[in-house]
Amino acid sequence: MHHEKIKQLLQAVQAQQLSIEEAAFKLQNLPYEDLGFAKVDHHRALRRGFPEVVFCQKKRPAQAAEIILRLAQHNQVLATRASQEIFKLVAAQQPQAVFNEVAATIFIAHGDLPRRPRSEKRILIVTAGTSDIPVAEEAAVTAEVMNQTVDRLYDVGVAGIHRLLNNKEKIDSANVLIVAAGMDGVLPSVVGGLVDKPVIAVPTSVGYGASFQGIAPLLTMLNACAPGVAVMNIDNGFGAGYFAALINK
Amino acid sequence: MHHEKIKQLLQAVQAQQLSIEEAAFKLQNLPYEDLGFAKVDHHRALRRGFPEVVFCQKKRPAQAAEIILRLAQHNQVLATRASQEIFKLVAAQQPQAVFNEVAATIFIAHGDLPRRPRSEKRILIVTAGTSDIPVAEEAAVTAEVMNQTVDRLYDVGVAGIHRLLNNKEKIDSANVLIVAAGMDGVLPSVVGGLVDKPVIAVPTSVGYGASFQGIAPLLTMLNACAPGVAVMNIDNGFGAGYFAALINK
Amino acid sequence: MHHEKIKQLLQAVQAQQLSIEEAAFKLQNLPYEDLGFAKVDHHRALRRGFPEVVFCQKKRPAQAAEIILRLAQHNQVLATRASQEIFKLVAAQQPQAVFNEVAATIFIAHGDLPRRPRSEKRILIVTAGTSDIPVAEEAAVTAEVMNQTVDRLYDVGVAGIHRLLNNKEKIDSANVLIVAAGMDGVLPSVVGGLVDKPVIAVPTSVGYGASFQGIAPLLTMLNACAPGVAVMNIDNGFGAGYFAALINK
Amino acid sequence: MHHEKIKQLLQAVQAQQLSIEEAAFKLQNLPYEDLGFAKVDHHRALRRGFPEVVFCQKKRPAQAAEIILRLAQHNQVLATRASQEIFKLVAAQQPQAVFNEVAATIFIAHGDLPRRPRSEKRILIVTAGTSDIPVAEEAAVTAEVMNQTVDRLYDVGVAGIHRLLNNKEKIDSANVLIVAAGMDGVLPSVVGGLVDKPVIAVPTSVGYGASFQGIAPLLTMLNACAPGVAVMNIDNGFGAGYFAALINK
Amino acid sequence: MHHEKIKQLLQAVQAQQLSIEEAAFKLQNLPYEDLGFAKVDHHRALRRGFPEVVFCQKKRPAQAAEIILRLAQHNQVLATRASQEIFKLVAAQQPQAVFNEVAATIFIAHGDLPRRPRSEKRILIVTAGTSDIPVAEEAAVTAEVMNQTVDRLYDVGVAGIHRLLNNKEKIDSANVLIVAAGMDGVLPSVVGGLVDKPVIAVPTSVGYGASFQGIAPLLTMLNACAPGVAVMNIDNGFGAGYFAALINK
Amino acid sequence: MHHEKIKQLLQAVQAQQLSIEEAAFKLQNLPYEDLGFAKVDHHRALRRGFPEVVFCQKKRPAQAAEIILRLAQHNQVLATRASQEIFKLVAAQQPQAVFNEVAATIFIAHGDLPRRPRSEKRILIVTAGTSDIPVAEEAAVTAEVMNQTVDRLYDVGVAGIHRLLNNKEKIDSANVLIVAAGMDGVLPSVVGGLVDKPVIAVPTSVGYGASFQGIAPLLTMLNACAPGVAVMNIDNGFGAGYFAALINK
Amino acid sequence: MHHEKIKQLLQAVQAQQLSIEEAAFKLQNLPYEDLGFAKVDHHRALRRGFPEVVFCQKKRPAQAAEIILRLAQHNQVLATRASQEIFKLVAAQQPQAVFNEVAATIFIAHGDLPRRPRSEKRILIVTAGTSDIPVAEEAAVTAEVMNQTVDRLYDVGVAGIHRLLNNKEKIDSANVLIVAAGMDGVLPSVVGGLVDKPVIAVPTSVGYGASFQGIAPLLTMLNACAPGVAVMNIDNGFGAGYFAALINK
Amino acid sequence: MHHEKIKQLLQAVQAQQLSIEEAAFKLQNLPYEDLGFAKVDHHRALRRGFPEVVFCQKKRPAQAAEIILRLAQHNQVLATRASQEIFKLVAAQQPQAVFNEVAATIFIAHGDLPRRPRSEKRILIVTAGTSDIPVAEEAAVTAEVMNQTVDRLYDVGVAGIHRLLNNKEKIDSANVLIVAAGMDGVLPSVVGGLVDKPVIAVPTSVGYGASFQGIAPLLTMLNACAPGVAVMNIDNGFGAGYFAALINK
Repeated sequence: MHHEKIKQLLQAVQAQQLSIEEAAFKLQNLPYEDLGFAKVDHHRALRRGFPEVVFCQKKRPAQAAEIILRLAQHNQVLATRASQEIFKLVAAQQPQAVFNEVAATIFIAHGDLPRRPRSEKRILIVTAGTSDIPVAEEAAVTAEVMNQTVDRLYDVGVAGIHRLLNNKEKIDSANVLIVAAGMDGVLPSVVGGLVDKPVIAVPTSVGYGASFQGIAPLLTMLNACAPGVAVMNIDNGFGAGYFAALINK
Repeated sequence: MHHEKIKQLLQAVQAQQLSIEEAAFKLQNLPYEDLGFAKVDHHRALRRGFPEVVFCQKKRPAQAAEIILRLAQHNQVLATRASQEIFKLVAAQQPQAVFNEVAATIFIAHGDLPRRPRSEKRILIVTAGTSDIPVAEEAAVTAEVMNQTVDRLYDVGVAGIHRLLNNKEKIDSANVLIVAAGMDGVLPSVVGGLVDKPVIAVPTSVGYGASFQGIAPLLTMLNACAPGVAVMNIDNGFGAGYFAALINK
Repeated sequence: MHHEKIKQLLQAVQAQQLSIEEAAFKLQNLPYEDLGFAKVDHHRALRRGFPEVVFCQKKRPAQAAEIILRLAQHNQVLATRASQEIFKLVAAQQPQAVFNEVAATIFIAHGDLPRRPRSEKRILIVTAGTSDIPVAEEAAVTAEVMNQTVDRLYDVGVAGIHRLLNNKEKIDSANVLIVAAGMDGVLPSVVGGLVDKPVIAVPTSVGYGASFQGIAPLLTMLNACAPGVAVMNIDNGFGAGYFAALINK
Repeated sequence: MHHEKIKQLLQAVQAQQLSIEEAAFKLQNLPYEDLGFAKVDHHRALRRGFPEVVFCQKKRPAQAAEIILRLAQHNQVLATRASQEIFKLVAAQQPQAVFNEVAATIFIAHGDLPRRPRSEKRILIVTAGTSDIPVAEEAAVTAEVMNQTVDRLYDVGVAGIHRLLNNKEKIDSANVLIVAAGMDGVLPSVVGGLVDKPVIAVPTSVGYGASFQGIAPLLTMLNACAPGVAVMNIDNGFGAGYFAALINK
Repeated sequence: MHHEKIKQLLQAVQAQQLSIEEAAFKLQNLPYEDLGFAKVDHHRALRRGFPEVVFCQKKRPAQAAEIILRLAQHNQVLATRASQEIFKLVAAQQPQAVFNEVAATIFIAHGDLPRRPRSEKRILIVTAGTSDIPVAEEAAVTAEVMNQTVDRLYDVGVAGIHRLLNNKEKIDSANVLIVAAGMDGVLPSVVGGLVDKPVIAVPTSVGYGASFQGIAPLLTMLNACAPGVAVMNIDNGFGAGYFAALINK
Repeated sequence: MHHEKIKQLLQAVQAQQLSIEEAAFKLQNLPYEDLGFAKVDHHRALRRGFPEVVFCQKKRPAQAAEIILRLAQHNQVLATRASQEIFKLVAAQQPQAVFNEVAATIFIAHGDLPRRPRSEKRILIVTAGTSDIPVAEEAAVTAEVMNQTVDRLYDVGVAGIHRLLNNKEKIDSANVLIVAAGMDGVLPSVVGGLVDKPVIAVPTSVGYGASFQGIAPLLTMLNACAPGVAVMNIDNGFGAGYFAALINK
Repeated sequence: MHHEKIKQLLQAVQAQQLSIEEAAFKLQNLPYEDLGFAKVDHHRALRRGFPEVVFCQKKRPAQAAEIILRLAQHNQVLATRASQEIFKLVAAQQPQAVFNEVAATIFIAHGDLPRRPRSEKRILIVTAGTSDIPVAEEAAVTAEVMNQTVDRLYDVGVAGIHRLLNNKEKIDSANVLIVAAGMDGVLPSVVGGLVDKPVIAVPTSVGYGASFQGIAPLLTMLNACAPGVAVMNIDNGFGAGYFAALINK
Repeated sequence: MHHEKIKQLLQAVQAQQLSIEEAAFKLQNLPYEDLGFAKVDHHRALRRGFPEVVFCQKKRPAQAAEIILRLAQHNQVLATRASQEIFKLVAAQQPQAVFNEVAATIFIAHGDLPRRPRSEKRILIVTAGTSDIPVAEEAAVTAEVMNQTVDRLYDVGVAGIHRLLNNKEKIDSANVLIVAAGMDGVLPSVVGGLVDKPVIAVPTSVGYGASFQGIAPLLTMLNACAPGVAVMNIDNGFGAGYFAALINK
C-alpha cells in the first residue's frame, strides 16, 4: 500500500470522517501493493512482526537487487541466499545494508522503527560439522532480526560425542534449540534425548553418495526416536530461525 | 531403578553417609531399570516431565499389556496405537486405565502424583478431513496428559475454504497449532499464512494413489511457502502433541 | 508435403481427374514431409488448429533456428524454451518473428492466414509466486496463439491468502483456470475449492531441498482434495496453455 | 445448515425484516453444518452443481453408511469405493439408492429436485484393458450424475492398435475424452495424437512388477508427447468424471 | 556329493590309485549334489567353515522342512526366519534340532563333528530398542554357530543416551560390534564414535511412516559420520553375524 | 469375430463372390470379437503365431475361468498366474486343459490345429536360486507352447560360482538364454560374460529388505557390464519366454 | 597377451612341440594383457566376434585416446560417447579411424582381417523424435560394425501416428527392431503391437520434468502391454545394437 | 588441546601434583581444541590410532589448505578428495606432504612419531573396471597410512570372468578384501562366493542411465547372495580402507 494511501486513511480518521473500526478493517484488507509482476505484502511486517524476505537463489543479481531496494523503501528487508554481487548493487543505494557472508544474507534495518530489546530466553544453534555452519548462520541472522538472543555450538557431531557432552551446560540453558546436520543427520536425535526443550532439526545437503543432497538426514530426523524434535526442509536455515523465534517470543 | 534402591539412597543421605551432591549424581546417572530385555527409563518422567510411553503397534497384545503394567507400577503410562484387546488386559489389573478409542490410546494416571493445573495458553488442533481425526486425537491426548489445554477444529480442509476462514477467531486465539492433513497436505500452508504462531504440521497416510501413504503431504508440508511451519513424521500425532506441549509450557 | 504436391492434387481436382473424396483422403494420409532427419507434420495445423511447435531446450542454437525457419516456410511456428541467441538467427530471415523474453518463446505468424477473432470466454492464469511467471507466460503465449483471451493473476500464493481472496471476482469470471506453483504447490487446491470451472495445475521446478525439482508440487496437485483439478508435467506451460485452449474453444 | 435456519432466513426475507442481499450473503457465508466430527458442506451442491460425495475406502461400513444417510436427508449423495455391505445398510433406509457394482458407487437422487436434461455433447470414456473398467465406470457414473452423456470404448489398448483405429469415428464424435490405462499407460498418448479435443488421462494401478501400483502409467501420461493431455491421480475415476463434466457443461 | 562318491574317492587314495593332489582337486571341483530342483552345496561347510543355511521366509512349511531335513543328512543346518510350524515338522525326524523362537532360527548340529572351542575375542551385539531384538538374536545365533562368543547390550538407543554411556566398559571390551537399529538408525553412528573396532550396522524395518520399512535407518548408516561402520541389508541379522564371525576368527 | 462371419466370408470366396484379396483384407481388418466388456482378439494367434493369453492375477476365479473358456472355443489358450481353483473350473468343461502348478499356468491346446515340430535350436533357462523357479517355469511353458525346445539349469547362483562354471557346455550349446534372478540379480551379468548369445534377464521379486520387490535385481540387470543382455519386467517369465521364442524361431 | 607370446605359441605349434589342443587351450585361458592399470581383453574379439569397445564418457581426451590407440595395435576398436577432440588425437596416429559425429563414435577397422559380408536379414532402427537420433545412430554403428544390415525410420512418434502406420511395410520387412524413445516412451509398445519380431526398446534421457532423465520411458517400456519387447539401459544405443546383432546373426 | 596444556599436565604428573589416573582422565576428557569455527579433535589419533582426516570436496582450496596446515602442526593429516591446487598451497609450507593424484589424497606424516611396521596380513583391493581405480586408491592410501599392507587387483569385472578366476591365488591369500564396482556392482557378490574372508563392498558412481550415480551397485551389494559382504557408502574409498584396517589390525 502506498504511503500516501495510509496517510489519507489516517487523516480521515483524525477528521472523524472514518471510524476507527473501518480504518482498521481497511488496513487489514488492503494489505499489499500490486506492482504488476508481484504483490508486495507490506503489512506482513505488521501482521507477523517480521521484515520482508527475499529469496535470492536463482534470481539474477540485478533482479534481486531491484526487488530488495523496492521493498526497502517502506520496510525492513532480509535477503537470503544473497551473493556479494547482489550486496554491492544494494549497498550502492542503501548504505546501511549489512552483508553476512557466511549466512549469505543481507539485512536492511529501517531507521524509523525503534529497535525492540533482545529476548532474555536463548536460542541455541548447534551444528554437527563445520560445513553446516552456513545453514546455521542463516538461522541465527533470521532469529536475531526478530530480536532473539542466539547462542552457537558448532562442530559437535557424534563422531566425537564428548564434544557434545562437554557442553551439556550450554545445551541445558537454552529455551529452544536448532540442530543442523548433514550426512547421517544423527545429531538432533542425540540432542533431543538430552533436553526437554523443543528441538528444531534442519537437514543440510552436506554429504555425498547415499546422502542424496539431504534426503538421508531428512529421513533420519523425521524418524527421530527422541520425542520433541520437529523438522524443516533441507538447508532451510531461515525457516528454522523463524520458527524458533515464534516459539521463543 | 527399584524403589528399594531409591530408599536406600535417601536413607544414606539422611544418615549423612552420602552427600547431597553424590546422591543427586547417582540419581541422575542410574536412571534406568535393566529388565534384561529392556532398559526401562523410570527417570524420564522426572527429567522430561512426562509419563512412560509405549508404542503398541506390531506388538502382540499380551506383550504390550505386560510392558504397560510393568511400567505402571512406578510411573504414569501413555500407550499409543493401542487396541481394545490390549486395553482389556490392562484394565483387568489397572482399573483406573482410560481408553480413548478414536486416539487408540490408553492412559494410566498415577494416583500419588498431584495433578498440575492445565495451561492457560491453548493448543489448537486442526484437521483437513474427518479421516485425519485419529492422528489429531492422539496429539490431543498426548498434550492433555502433559497438562495442556487443547482446542479442536476438525474437517476444515481447503476444498471448502470458508469452513476455515469462518473460524478465524478460534485460530487467532491459539498459542500453538497442530495441523493434520493427508492427500495433498495443503492445510498447514494455508493456516501458516493466517497466523503468527508456531504451526506443527502432521502429514497423515490418508489418501490413495500418488499420495503414497503420506509421502505427498509430507513433501507439501516440508515445502510450505508460509514460514512458521515445522513437520513431524507421517501419522505422528504423539510427536506433534509432545512438541506442542514443550512449546506451550 | 511439398507445396508442389498439394498444387498437383488440387489441379487434378479442378480437372476432375480426382474426386473430392479421394483428394481429401490423400491430404489426410500424406500429411508429413520427410526431411530425412525429421518427418515434419505440416498438416497438424489443419488437423489440430495449431502452428508447428519447436521445443528448443537442449538443441544447439543453429540447429533450432534451422528447424524453425524450415517450418516457417509453410506454417505458423511457435518455438518454446527459446533463447535470445536463437531469436537473432531466426529474425535475420523472418523479420516478423516475435520474441517473448519472459516466456522464452518465438512466434512467427503466417501473413496469408486471416487471423480469427479472440474468444469471448476467458482463460485466467494464476501463479503462486513471481518465480512461476515464466511458466505462466509460456502458457499465456500458447493460448493466445490459439486465439484465446487470457487474463493474469500473479503472485497470489497462500502465504498471504488475502491476496487471492481479494481477487475473487476475477477468478469467478474465468471459464478455465491455469494455476502454476512450485515449492508446496498448494495454490491449485485452494483455487479448485473456490470455483466450479476446470483448473489446470502446473507444478514448477521452483523451490529447493525437498521440493525435488518439482516433484513435491506435482504430488500435491495430483492429490488435490478439491475436485476439478487436472495436472500437467513439471514446468509444462505450453501443455497447460494448449489444454486450456482446447477447453475454451 | 439446519433446515430450520434456512426457513427462518426465508421467513425473515418474506417479512421484509431481512433484505435480499443480506439473506444471499448469509446463505453463502454459513454454508456448512457443524456435526461436531465433520463440517458437512450442504451448499456445495448449490455452489458447484454437484451432490455430496463420500469416499468410502478405509471407512468401516457402519460409519460410511451413517455419513451417507445423514447427507441424504437434504442432498443428493454419491458414494465412491462403496461395497455391497455399505449398500445394504444404506438401502434399508433409502430404498431409492442405486448401487453400481462395477463402479463401486452408490447414488441417491433427491426426488424434489427436477432432473436437468442430459448434455448433447458427449464424453467418451476409453480403457486400454478390461481391468481398467472399474475406474472407467466410476468416471462414467460421476459424469452421468452431473447430467452428462457418456459413451464407452473399452479394451482398445495398443497391443492390438487396430481395435482403436477401427473406432476412429466414435473417437472423433466426442467432445471430451477420458482414457484410463494401467501397466505402460500408453493409450492416452496415442488417443491424444488422434484427436483435437481435451484428453483426461487416468493412470490405473493395474499391472505388476515395475508398474509400481500405477506410478509407471502416471509418469507415461505426465510425459505424453501429444499435447492436449492432462492427468489425474492414480485410479481417480471420480476426479476424471468430474473434470470432464466441468468441461462439457 | 553323495557319501558313496566321497568314500570311493578316499578308497582310491588309500589304494594309491589316485594321487592326493588329484583327490583334493576332485573334492574341490565336484562340490554340489544336483537334486534336480536344487544344487545343494555340501562342501560349503568345508570351504567356508559354516553349516548349510536355509532361508525359510516365503517357503511353505512342508517345503522348508523337507529341504532342512535333506541337508541335515550330511551337514549341520541353520534355518533362518523359521516358524514354530516348520520346527515341529523338523523335530519329528531330527530330535536334536534346536528352535530359538526370538531369533526364529532352527539349528541342527551334527553329532559326528567335534565342537571347536569358542573364540576368546568377543562380539558385542547392541540394539537401539526392544523391537530390534529378533534381528539381533538372528545375528547372535549365527555367530555362535560359527563358534564365536557373543555378548548382548539391548535397548540402549540414544533417546536416553546415558543407557549407552553407562555401558562403556562392555563396549570397549568387544573385538567386533554389531549394532541393530530401526526408525532413525542413529545408534551405529554414536557407537562408531566411541570405539576403534569394526562396527557392523544393521538397519531394521522397525518404525512407521517415513522410516519406509528400513530405508531411513539404512541411509543413516550408509552416511555414518564416524568411520569404521559398514552396513548390511535391512533386517539381515544372519549376514551381520556371519560377517562378524569372519572378522573375529 | 464370430464363427458365422468367418464361414460367410469363406462361402463368399468359394462362390467367387469375393476375391481372395478382399477376403484376406477383411480377415486382417476385422480381427476381434466385441464381447461388450472386452474386445477379444481372435486373430492374434494367426498374426503373431501364438494362443490367446489370459493374465489371471487379481481376477476372481469365476471371472478368470469364464474368460478362458470363452477364448478356448476358437483358440488355443495360455493362462498365466493361474490357481488350482481356476483350473478346476476350467477343467470341468475343457478336460484337455493342462495345469502346471509350479509355473501357475493352464494350457488348452486346440485339437484341430496340427502341432508343429519343436525347434532344433535350444533355449536355456537359468535361475540363480530355487525360489526363482516359478518365474523360470512360466517362461519355459510359454516357449514350449510356441514350439520351442527348452533346457533348464536351475540354482546356479554366484554364491557358489563353480555350480555355474561346471555347466559351461550346457550354456555354450544354447541359442538363446533366459536368466532369472532375485536379490542381487547378479547372474545375468556373469552369464552374459560367458556366452556370445542373446541373454534375456528377468529380475524376480525374490529377496527382502533393500531388494525392494525386485527393483534391486532390475537395476543390476539394466546396468549389466557384459553386453548382450536385455531386460524384462520383474517376474515377467511369460514375456521372457515369448521374447526368446521370437528370437529362436 | 603380448604379441611375442602369441608368436612363441604358434612357433611351438609349428615345431610340433605343442599340440593344437594345448595351444587352443592356452589361447583361451590367457586371453588378456595386463597393462597394470587395465586388463585388456584382446581375445574378446575372437570369443565374441566383436572389436574392443571403449566407453569415452567421463574420460579425459588424452586418456581416452591413449586407450583407443593401445587397443588398435592388435584389434578393431569401437569407441562410444567420443568427442571431436578425442578423434583428432586418435586420427593423428590412426588415419583410417572413422568418426561419426551424430553417433559420437570412432571406429578403427583392422586392415588385416577380411571383411565379412553384410547380413541379408535387416535390423530396423526406429525413433520417436529427432532428439533420439544420437542414441539410434550409436546402435546403428554398433550393429554395422558387427556386419549387420541396418534400416532407419526416424521421427515417427505417436503424436502423429499416421507417420508410423504409413511405414508399415518397412516395419514388416525387418527381422529385429530397435525402438528408441524418450519422454513418454510409448513407441515400443505401439510397434510391439504391430509386428511379431523381437523389439528392443531403448529409453532415452530426452524430455524434461517428470521424465526424470529417462526413468519415465524406462518404466513405460518395462511395462509394455505388447509382448515381444525387451529393454536396455537408458541411452544405451551400443547395447541395443549389440543385442540386435546377436539375434540377427 | 594446546601443546602447552599437555606439557603442563605432564609437568604436574612429574611433580606428583597430579595422580596418573587424574592425568589420564583429563587427557581423555579434554580432547579437542576449540578453534571457534571447529572443534579439532587432536586426540582422535591417540584414541583411534589414526591421523586427522580432512574431506576437501566442496571446500574452497584456500579454506581446505588452511585446515590441513592447522591440523598438521600437531598431527599426521590425511586429506581426501584433494586437488592439485590444494596440494600446492599445502606443500609450500609442509614440504614433506605427499600427493597421490589418482587417489586425490594428500598425506602429511609427522616426523616425530616412529613409524610402526606394516602388517603381515594383507588387504586385497579389487576393482571391476579402470574407472573404479580412484576409489580403490583412496582406500589403499587410507589403509597404508594405518600401517597395513595392501595388494591390488584391478579391472577384473565379470564381463570377462576369467580375468578374475585366473587370480584365484592372489584372492585366496588376502585376509580382508575391498571390492569396488560401479554400473551393475556385481563383482563383490562373485568375490564373496569365492572366499571365506570379509569382503567390503564399495559401490562407485561409475556408470550412466539407470545406475543412478551409484544407487544400482549399492542395491546390488546390499542384496549380495554370498554371505560375508558388508557395504560402504557410494564412492567411500576412505571408509573402506579404514574399515579394512580395523579388521586387519
